[in-house]
Amino acid sequence: MNALAFLDYASVFVFALTGALVASRAQLDIVGFVFIACLTAVGGGTVRDVILDRPVFWVDSPSFIVVASIAAFIVFFTAHLLESRHRAIPWIDAFALAVAVPAGVAAAVAVGAVWPVIVIMGVATGCFGGLMRDVVCNEVPLVLKQGELYVTCAFAGAGAAGVLLHLGQPLPIALAGCAFVTLALRIGSIAFGWRLPVYKSRPPRA
Amino acid sequence: MNALAFLDYASVFVFALTGALVASRAQLDIVGFVFIACLTAVGGGTVRDVILDRPVFWVDSPSFIVVASIAAFIVFFTAHLLESRHRAIPWIDAFALAVAVPAGVAAAVAVGAVWPVIVIMGVATGCFGGLMRDVVCNEVPLVLKQGELYVTCAFAGAGAAGVLLHLGQPLPIALAGCAFVTLALRIGSIAFGWRLPVYKSRPPRA
Amino acid sequence: MNALAFLDYASVFVFALTGALVASRAQLDIVGFVFIACLTAVGGGTVRDVILDRPVFWVDSPSFIVVASIAAFIVFFTAHLLESRHRAIPWIDAFALAVAVPAGVAAAVAVGAVWPVIVIMGVATGCFGGLMRDVVCNEVPLVLKQGELYVTCAFAGAGAAGVLLHLGQPLPIALAGCAFVTLALRIGSIAFGWRLPVYKSRPPRA
Repeated sequence: MNALAFLDYASVFVFALTGALVASRAQLDIVGFVFIACLTAVGGGTVRDVILDRPVFWVDSPSFIVVASIAAFIVFFTAHLLESRHRAIPWIDAFALAVAVPAGVAAAVAVGAVWPVIVIMGVATGCFGGLMRDVVCNEVPLVLKQGELYVTCAFAGAGAAGVLLHLGQPLPIALAGCAFVTLALRIGSIAFGWRLPVYKSRPPRA
Repeated sequence: MNALAFLDYASVFVFALTGALVASRAQLDIVGFVFIACLTAVGGGTVRDVILDRPVFWVDSPSFIVVASIAAFIVFFTAHLLESRHRAIPWIDAFALAVAVPAGVAAAVAVGAVWPVIVIMGVATGCFGGLMRDVVCNEVPLVLKQGELYVTCAFAGAGAAGVLLHLGQPLPIALAGCAFVTLALRIGSIAFGWRLPVYKSRPPRA
Repeated sequence: MNALAFLDYASVFVFALTGALVASRAQLDIVGFVFIACLTAVGGGTVRDVILDRPVFWVDSPSFIVVASIAAFIVFFTAHLLESRHRAIPWIDAFALAVAVPAGVAAAVAVGAVWPVIVIMGVATGCFGGLMRDVVCNEVPLVLKQGELYVTCAFAGAGAAGVLLHLGQPLPIALAGCAFVTLALRIGSIAFGWRLPVYKSRPPRA
């Protein structure tokens, strides 16, 4: 199993957990859990593969769907044991983001894309699965939560990968750097409130 | 006209009716009716074809768009004659689902997909058109309605097709079985309240 | 730079402005501005290219992403200077629509599509970017606003292009006619309240 496949499996499993947790908030049945888990898990990578005109990653390897379904079953039968499962969503989502962004970067590198496309594919793979989950389930998209870094983490991580590749670093180092930057920024944002200045309609005046 | 084309036409027409009925609830004009009808009617099949990397079915045969537009016109000019037209939406949608799921299955079989992909394509073709309709029109997605079987019906129908094909049945039999299972479950859910246990945050304790 | 590339650049820039203005209403940070601006700017053309099975236009020319990002920066740092920036959104969106519809038409002509597909691609390219922007940002989609022409303008513009091409006019004339019809109808709708009769659940009786 190469690096890209491993990252895809890891991001599918962890994003599926977040999808199933959102499904638990909507009190769906087990098939609903599997549906939302699969949508979240493969949504970002599907958009990536369709845009890059690669074969969609789970069509040739349906084991991705099996992995996402297992995650849905785990959450359906055990989530009630975890008192604070809804507060766990952003934390698990952070880990999913930190594997999905390098997965997007690796796929774009594999097709020989230029660096802006590499960065965009990292961001899109990281963000679109969660975005579909939130739009379908009527949650406020994490990507839009005020005063939190989300797209920024994906963007910084994908950018770090681009810089490392540009400096001649091998791909695994670039992907590791990408995952580290994404995760560190996202955890910093959740735990310590790191953020960027937001747009204010009325800037302070003297 | 082969089986796949017939199923595509039937599902396009019936899904277009549901799209136009939702447009009537939003009190759009005739072009809005046509837009929502077309989005609903071809949305699921478009997602299917893009993921399977087939030519999108309505690009080569724009008569699908004509059929969807006719459905929109019919609803625009006659729906007010039907007292209970909004209550008709889930029933008509049930028939659309029961033709769209086998249409997705047939398309996946046509490209030689493995069976998990066949099942997923059945579910995706059945569910995504209605999902787009509901997301765009700000309705609660049918797929998320608590205490109703929806994805489950698509899943069971597509699974039945997979089993029948695995048992060596010819494709038309498998598609008929798929349509029957999907429709029976969905009507059972609407009319008799059939459902699966939903996730409860607090399971009953002794 | 040919006509298609020019229209794509123009529509990307103007749609990115509308995306950034919606992001300003949601009070996002600069990366959020860039994300929503890019989604709005390339969303419609991406759907168009994926459906037509062309290479996605910005993957080979990432300068489109640079253009959209510049628009996001301009809005982030200057929008507060403009008192009535939220009321400007439909106006700027009107110009974006009037370049995106001919861009969609030109792309469909370039792949030799039949005329119903040409019309649909014009409508889809024009409407889907703004639709994604509004769905992601929880705005009421412009496409659904009661008592306003929106899809109708795209449809009439794309139809005008189809008629002009059918009459043997050269492509630039057809595209100019398309842009003119789209813009004139949309401005007429915003400024003078032009509209089509909407569906009424209870038609007037004697």
